[in-house]
Formats: sequence, structure tokens, C-alpha cells
Amino acid sequence: MEKDRLAAFSDGVIAVIITIMVLDLRIPHAANLAALRALAPIFVSYVLSFIYVAIYWNNHHHFFHLVARVNGAVLWANMNLLFWLSLIPFTTSWLGANDHAPWPAALYGISLLMTALAWFIMERIIIRSQGPESAIEQALGRDFKARISPLLYLTGIMLAFIEVRLAEAIYALVALLWIIPDRRVEAKLVEAELDDAK
Amino acid sequence: MEKDRLAAFSDGVIAVIITIMVLDLRIPHAANLAALRALAPIFVSYVLSFIYVAIYWNNHHHFFHLVARVNGAVLWANMNLLFWLSLIPFTTSWLGANDHAPWPAALYGISLLMTALAWFIMERIIIRSQGPESAIEQALGRDFKARISPLLYLTGIMLAFIEVRLAEAIYALVALLWIIPDRRVEAKLVEAELDDAK
Amino acid sequence: MEKDRLAAFSDGVIAVIITIMVLDLRIPHAANLAALRALAPIFVSYVLSFIYVAIYWNNHHHFFHLVARVNGAVLWANMNLLFWLSLIPFTTSWLGANDHAPWPAALYGISLLMTALAWFIMERIIIRSQGPESAIEQALGRDFKARISPLLYLTGIMLAFIEVRLAEAIYALVALLWIIPDRRVEAKLVEAELDDAK
Amino acid sequence: MEKDRLAAFSDGVIAVIITIMVLDLRIPHAANLAALRALAPIFVSYVLSFIYVAIYWNNHHHFFHLVARVNGAVLWANMNLLFWLSLIPFTTSWLGANDHAPWPAALYGISLLMTALAWFIMERIIIRSQGPESAIEQALGRDFKARISPLLYLTGIMLAFIEVRLAEAIYALVALLWIIPDRRVEAKLVEAELDDAK
Repeated sequence: MEKDRLAAFSDGVIAVIITIMVLDLRIPHAANLAALRALAPIFVSYVLSFIYVAIYWNNHHHFFHLVARVNGAVLWANMNLLFWLSLIPFTTSWLGANDHAPWPAALYGISLLMTALAWFIMERIIIRSQGPESAIEQALGRDFKARISPLLYLTGIMLAFIEVRLAEAIYALVALLWIIPDRRVEAKLVEAELDDAK
Repeated sequence: MEKDRLAAFSDGVIAVIITIMVLDLRIPHAANLAALRALAPIFVSYVLSFIYVAIYWNNHHHFFHLVARVNGAVLWANMNLLFWLSLIPFTTSWLGANDHAPWPAALYGISLLMTALAWFIMERIIIRSQGPESAIEQALGRDFKARISPLLYLTGIMLAFIEVRLAEAIYALVALLWIIPDRRVEAKLVEAELDDAK
Repeated sequence: MEKDRLAAFSDGVIAVIITIMVLDLRIPHAANLAALRALAPIFVSYVLSFIYVAIYWNNHHHFFHLVARVNGAVLWANMNLLFWLSLIPFTTSWLGANDHAPWPAALYGISLLMTALAWFIMERIIIRSQGPESAIEQALGRDFKARISPLLYLTGIMLAFIEVRLAEAIYALVALLWIIPDRRVEAKLVEAELDDAK
Repeated sequence: MEKDRLAAFSDGVIAVIITIMVLDLRIPHAANLAALRALAPIFVSYVLSFIYVAIYWNNHHHFFHLVARVNGAVLWANMNLLFWLSLIPFTTSWLGANDHAPWPAALYGISLLMTALAWFIMERIIIRSQGPESAIEQALGRDFKARISPLLYLTGIMLAFIEVRLAEAIYALVALLWIIPDRRVEAKLVEAELDDAK
């Protein structure tokens, strides 16, 4: 019950975050293709952020499936995660409005970095509260991604002031990195279920 | 459990999408009937899009009722569907602001087409993951609509540059097509339940 | 299950509707009391609409508690209700921006009337689908309110063009009417439970 | 069931409230650090309000966990709480846009005060409806915070006209006060569970 309501509230917040980003896709000033084309950078940043928020929802969904119970520390760690996620529409909007500008690209990376750190903190707090069990093992399976992502975001933030397109490429790359290995985690989940069935 | 949270998240996203569209119904500049009448095209496009999003929610509701379990591929296919649905407020807004203009009408058709394809992909992935069972049969019952709709959207997109009112009529027609046969699918569901009861 | 997801989706839509209305409470132009006071009519219309949407959620909550199952007709009747509810932020906003103007007051009444009719239609469809049972009896208990409200809204709409403050008073009166007798329905629910317990 | 839907609706409303506040974080006018820095007061007020809304959700979550059943009075007391919560994005926005101005700081305090009173009323109504049981004891444990907060808000409201920074410090202090003792309540919850297990 406790866990279900935390998941339901997080779903609600993430659903609003992922959807209100589209409000920054203001309609073109004229009814022609050229005016539509001018929105391309905003659209691209929307797509990237949609994927990032979707990744976090997917991970949240998988992770809490393995969590047996939540306490006050987990509630606040989850709120912290939702807070940084809630800033993504803002940083996305600034990035989209200023095509290839250093500061917006750096701030976008910072918001991704802070969200990743919030996830990492929540993960640690949950693992500690669950005791030494299978949940930890599953989490270790994700450790590589959780460790490499912040480093890549940091690289992106610094590159924003040198070659901004490289920074943007790195943000896209990390998203790709998270989409693909999800299947590996899933394989573990299936394995775990098969083990249970034995 | 897994399936329930996917449904709950999708409900949240679709609930936000269907409701934020109304934010584009900006209040009339004056407090009289003439100013209100000027909003007619925006209102009509809002009604049409509300019906479309409602159709997708209804289908999602019916379809996932028959789904036993979800995997990572289903999660991403569902996210892809939600992404294209999330663009409907934007394309609706452009259509409503530019009464009977070719490009907005074409883009509206494109967003409907992409959403339909995203649904089709999700349907295929789910059917494949469920194995050869009753779910497939039920899906086959809907195949006609799922196959004819993209063709009609394509026709609408092309007609937008020739006779835009025809394009708009086609979009309305497809919506009608989806509202009516729902009862046929439902009849099947009732049949299936009666068979189970035997 | 089917019913739960319809309720969850309706909750989501109503939650968004009741909350986005506050976006029309634009902050005062200056940081003083006079600027704040200028928002009074918008605030009053927000309060009234918040109460109306809250009444509909409460009734939805009570009513679906008595509903055993839903079919396609119920889904669409519910969507129709949500559609008219979704227009309330718009009509509220126009009313609030034009203090005591006839057309905005009339349109506000029309949106309340259409929502009431949508509720009435949904009620009839659900009762018919449930068969002749206790649900009908409970509904009959509410019949008086459901019958008198549209008449009062109609009176309000007409009065908007004669004496707009009377129209607004009537809308407030109907809201009051719905808040109070809720306790009577509840008494019946408690009675029904006591009967079951015998 | 009844209680679950009230919790789900409240989650939806609070999720929208906590997220739409970020819409007031309008992107900087220029793509540089100075333009970003100008948003600092809006950001700080956003953080404070995010924490306040998060506290209310956490308390709601904990409190309803102990509630066995809800009646009409509880539904309306909860709606009253959601109403005052829904005004927080508005008062936050005015506070953020007018750095250290007396009236916005006072109004912010008033909205916190009204929300606290709404919580207090709801708490009383729920405790009365549950009968003299363990829920009361748990509630008494929170009494101190519930009694001191309104006094502190009142102090803040008055200080807003004398030394506005002190008022803001008090609002931040109360938030801190609520974050910390949550652990104490939790300890009681754990105790209660241990007692049950005996």
C-alpha cells in the first residue's frame, strides 16, 4: 500500500512533467513550412527530454517493482528526484530557444547531472533500507550506467563552452546508453523469476 | 502489478494531454457573441482532437485488459505512442489558429498518422509477446480499422494541399469510424466471457 | 478492474481540470494590495468553479461506488461528461475577466447546463446497464437535484441578459444545493450498509 | 476502495500543483549566466513551495494510511485542503516576481496559514469519524507541529511589513521543522507495527 501510493504519486508527477514540456512547442507564426521548420531545435530538445523522462519512469517502474517497503527517507529521496526532474521542462525550453548556445547547453547538462545524482542517492537509500538481498544484486547490474552517466554529463557540461554540438551529442549518447541496456536488466528479471519458479 | 502501473502512467499522460488542449482556447478579446464566434474553428479542432484522444484511451483500456504481462519492448512501444499523442495538442492548436490552411491541416494528419503507426507497432509487439492466443484473435477483429485508418490519414494529408475541407472531413470520418465499431469489439468481449462461463 | 481504470482516468482528468484553472489567476501587476484586489472577480469565479468541479468529483466517486460494471456506452458517456467539465476552466476564465458581463455569465451557465445534461445521460445509461436494482433507487434519491439544476441553470442563462448578478447568484445557489444534500445520499448509503449487515 | 480513490484523486491534484509551479520559471531573456542569475528569487520561492507541497503530500500519505474509512465530511475537508494548496503556485509566483516585497510575502504566509488550518480541520474531522482509537494517539504526536505552525505563519505575515527577510526566514524554518520530525512519527508507526506483531 505505502509503496503503491508513492509509485502512483511519482507517476502523476512524471506524467505532468513529460506532457507540459509540449506547451513550449508554441505554434508557428505563419501557416507555412518555413515557419514550422524554425521550430526544429525546440522539437529536437523536446524529443531528447521526452526520452530522458521516459527512461527515468521506466527505471522507476523496474526499480520499485523490486522494493518491498518504503520509509520516510525513501519518500524524501524520491521527492528530491522528482524535484530535479521537474526542472527538465525549464532547461529543455532554454536549450530549445537558444540553438547551440553554451550556457543553455551547460545548464541542460547540469539538470541531467543533478537528476542522475538524485537517482543514485535514492538507489543507495533504498538498498540500505532493504537489507543485503537480491535487490542489491540487481542494482549492481546497473552500477556501470549509474557511474558512467554523471561523468559523461560532466564532460558534456564542460564541452558546452568549447564545442556545444559535442555536448549535445554526449547528452543524446547517454540517452541511447540507457535505452539499450534496459534489456539486459530485464533478462536478469526474467532469470530471477525462473529461479523463483524452480 | 507491472501492467497496472503502465496503465496508470498512460492514464496520467493521456489525462494531461486531453486537458491541456483546452488551454489553447484563449478567452475572447471582448465580452460579446461576435468575439466568442471567432473561436469557432479552434473549438471545432478541440472537439475533434478530444474525440481522437478519447478513442485512443478507450482502445488502450480495452486492449490492455486483454494483456497478461508487459516487457521492456512494450514499455517503449507505449512511450512511443504517448509521444505522438503528446504532439496532438500542438498540431490541434496550429490547425485551430489557421482555419482551412493547407500546412496545418497536413501536419494534423501527419500527427494522426504517426499516432496510428505507433499504436500499430505497440499492438504487434504486444501480440508477439503474448504468444498465439485469444488476444490475437481479438486484435484481428480490429485489423480492418487499423489498416484503413493510415490510408485515410495519408489521403487526408495529400488532400490538404488540394481541397483542405475534404482533408478535414476525412479526419472527422475516421474518428466516427472508430467510435462506432467499438461496439462490435465489445460484443466479442461479451461473447468471450459467455464462452468462459460455459 | 475495468471500472477502476475508468475511475482512475476520470480522476486524472478532473485533477488536471480543477488545478489548471488556477493558471488564470495571473499575478498582480504591482506588489501592493490594490493590485491584488483587482483580481477579486477572477478569484470568486475560480472558487465557484472549484466547488462545481469538486461536486462532480464527489458525485462521480459516490456513483461509481455503486456501479458493478461498465460497457462501451458508459465509457463514452463518461468521456462526454469529461469534455463538458474540461470547458469549465475556459468559461470560468471569461466570466472572471469580464465582471458582471451578460455573455460570459450566460456562457458560464451554458457550460454548467451541458455538464449537468452529460451527467444525467451518463446516469441513465449506467442505470439501464445495471438492471432494475438498488442502484436505481439510490439514483432516484438524487432525481430532485438532477431535475431542478438544469431548470435553474436555464433561468440563470436567461437572467444573465436582464440582471447578471441574479444569474451569478443562481449559479452559487445551485452549488450550495449540491453540497448540502450529499449528506442525505450518504445517509442512504449507510442505511444500505446496515441493511446488508442484517 | 472509497479511501483509495480519495487518495488517488488527491495525489493527482497535488502532482499537478507541484509541477505547474515550474511553468512560472520562464526562460531567461538572454542565453547567458547574468540572465539566468536574475531568476534566482523565482527559483528560491519555487524550491520552498516544492518542499511545502511535498510535506503536505508526505503527511497526507502517512495520515490516510491510518484512516480506516472516509465519509462526505472528510471528502469536503480534503477538497478544502486541496483548494488552499492549489493557490500556492499563485502566491509563490507573486513572491518570486517581487523579491522581498511586503504584500507578496504576507500573502504567501496567508496561503500557508490557510493550508495549515485546512489540514487541521481535516485532521479533526477524520479523528472524530474514526472513534477514540490509536489514530488519535498518533495525531496527538503531531499536535505540537500543527499548533506551532499557524502561530509561526502569523508571525511571518506580520513581520512581512516590518522586515520581510525575517518573514521569509520563518517560512523556511517551518518547512525545516516539518521535514525533521517526520522521522519521529515514523518511529511511532514502526513501534505500532512491532506492537501489532507481538
